[in-house]
Amino acid sequence: MAEHLSQSELDYPFKLLEYFNGFRISKVIFSACELGVFDLLLKSQEPLSARHVAQELSTSVDGMERLLDALVGIEILEVETTNGTAFYSSTDVANLYLAKGSGKSLHDMIIYQSQTIYPLWNNLADAVREGKNQNEKTSGVPAEDVFQAIYSSEEEMLKFMGLMNSSWVLDGHDIVTAFNLSGFQNIVDVGGCTGALAREMAKAYPSSSVTVFDLPQVVETAQKHFSQENDAVAFQAGDFFSDELPPADLYVLARIIHDWPDEKCLTLLKKIHDLCKPGCGVLLVEALLFENRRGPVMAQMFSLNMLVQTEGQERPPSQYTQILNRSGFCNVQVCRTGKSYDAILAIK
Amino acid sequence: MAEHLSQSELDYPFKLLEYFNGFRISKVIFSACELGVFDLLLKSQEPLSARHVAQELSTSVDGMERLLDALVGIEILEVETTNGTAFYSSTDVANLYLAKGSGKSLHDMIIYQSQTIYPLWNNLADAVREGKNQNEKTSGVPAEDVFQAIYSSEEEMLKFMGLMNSSWVLDGHDIVTAFNLSGFQNIVDVGGCTGALAREMAKAYPSSSVTVFDLPQVVETAQKHFSQENDAVAFQAGDFFSDELPPADLYVLARIIHDWPDEKCLTLLKKIHDLCKPGCGVLLVEALLFENRRGPVMAQMFSLNMLVQTEGQERPPSQYTQILNRSGFCNVQVCRTGKSYDAILAIK
Repeated sequence: MAEHLSQSELDYPFKLLEYFNGFRISKVIFSACELGVFDLLLKSQEPLSARHVAQELSTSVDGMERLLDALVGIEILEVETTNGTAFYSSTDVANLYLAKGSGKSLHDMIIYQSQTIYPLWNNLADAVREGKNQNEKTSGVPAEDVFQAIYSSEEEMLKFMGLMNSSWVLDGHDIVTAFNLSGFQNIVDVGGCTGALAREMAKAYPSSSVTVFDLPQVVETAQKHFSQENDAVAFQAGDFFSDELPPADLYVLARIIHDWPDEKCLTLLKKIHDLCKPGCGVLLVEALLFENRRGPVMAQMFSLNMLVQTEGQERPPSQYTQILNRSGFCNVQVCRTGKSYDAILAIK
Repeated sequence: MAEHLSQSELDYPFKLLEYFNGFRISKVIFSACELGVFDLLLKSQEPLSARHVAQELSTSVDGMERLLDALVGIEILEVETTNGTAFYSSTDVANLYLAKGSGKSLHDMIIYQSQTIYPLWNNLADAVREGKNQNEKTSGVPAEDVFQAIYSSEEEMLKFMGLMNSSWVLDGHDIVTAFNLSGFQNIVDVGGCTGALAREMAKAYPSSSVTVFDLPQVVETAQKHFSQENDAVAFQAGDFFSDELPPADLYVLARIIHDWPDEKCLTLLKKIHDLCKPGCGVLLVEALLFENRRGPVMAQMFSLNMLVQTEGQERPPSQYTQILNRSGFCNVQVCRTGKSYDAILAIK
């Protein structure tokens, strides 16, 4: 593959220029989302002119026209011209994933990426230089620990929880069905945030009881902003490092291990192992690197994201197996889903 | 094409997630460039370990390893593993375009995009809302006009000039040979910055004399930092809006018109038309939009870039023809190069 890129690129680096343009394409989609373009087009029964969209969303006509045309260029929107005026409409993809209304909406993921992750990544070179996260430099707020920075305000907490929520909307079903978990009666999602993955779990295994365990302020916000009628999951407040965990047959750690260095992971997994009866276990959910670390690109980018924002990293399967073995778990199975997140099941 | 994207994306939005990842891929390349990764690998006679690269460039080993692996993932670097250690080497593309040494280096373009344009684009939604550039909000420095912001410090000016310089290294030859310009004896590159395009002009038309006309501080910086031995081009200092332009057979305006609103362009082009004798003319160099504005994506992104940073926009050929006609030029020819920048020749 590298040969291929090199040869075609030497005359003129089209692919490189596309990579340089990557941040602009991200921001075009993110900004349209923030301005409400996809919500308006979904609600509208007919294609709308740039002038109409600008008026409804209180933006400049000129700026909106350029934004809409760029979205047509990258095939997120469609356009037809009638009597010299361009009328824009959404694609099915935009309606499903970019508008707010849909059950599969990635709106909240986008807002967090645009407003929190994009500025953090402006300090990537410093993160590589220093080998540590750039929360303080980016936000100006000194923070003793990672989640103090991530939850630096109620607004930031809500945005982060939106991110977690919308990514399980995407990958949740594949994750909970990666292994047959129907034998586990009591499932606790440790650091389960809004409960989105726990609800997928409860849907797939209706005879199991599923509890979300997270920090008191997270549980409070989850119940205030992300609760559901007849919610299939329960919530319990606590700090998974310092407080006692509720008893369970299966502990889920979804995107928890990747936030922390090996020692902290080991401490947490040993604590869970001590709680487990034989036959009980832990399900890790993470974006797995290839064993040789040469991909997948998404997991490599996530690993740099962990550098910029946390104390952790993404890891290849062997590293998870190693930490799990050192914690006392012996039977470890790995399932790659082919999507963004993968699953590892370990039994005591 | 839009249909195609929609259908394959509805099950799982791989392409959308790739777009969301665009800013991370840009910053991976930009940061590696800023840290000197490509320069070190070019100089090295053999593949280097992450530890070695980190030591030479004074970075963390962990961060550097993740960065190098991500560059392998996007095929910018290559890796081979010997005795369990990964050794990284550059591709021909990286040596040619990303290292500093090469005559085709895009290093300076990357530095400007990473350090100035990337932060500006964090305010794209506001630019669309307000219909105006975000220089003041981004840099915190109030500026009366666009180039006061772009040239807000000597460092910023130098970075901007580096951007202009390296983009003509890429597209310069195609631009100056888009039309046969050998009939023009005296060529003035108005706002010609470092002289990179003017030198391509002088190389292609050795019997013509080529002069760069730009602001006094730009000319001074060009001669201090971008001069060449036996330079084939001359420099003359002045403001092309307020000062008299030197006489010429051909005036070149490369990425000048796209910085300004129609009225200012008209004023400048009328002034040039007044100076022209019959048979003389003007060469505009810009990234041309398609007539229906549905592409090319690169030109659409540039047009949003103009919104975020200047008072201008990218335009389709008909708009340039219209402004040129209104300025008095009648014979207008358009040449699309298939690269990033295109050429328009208009004769009096």
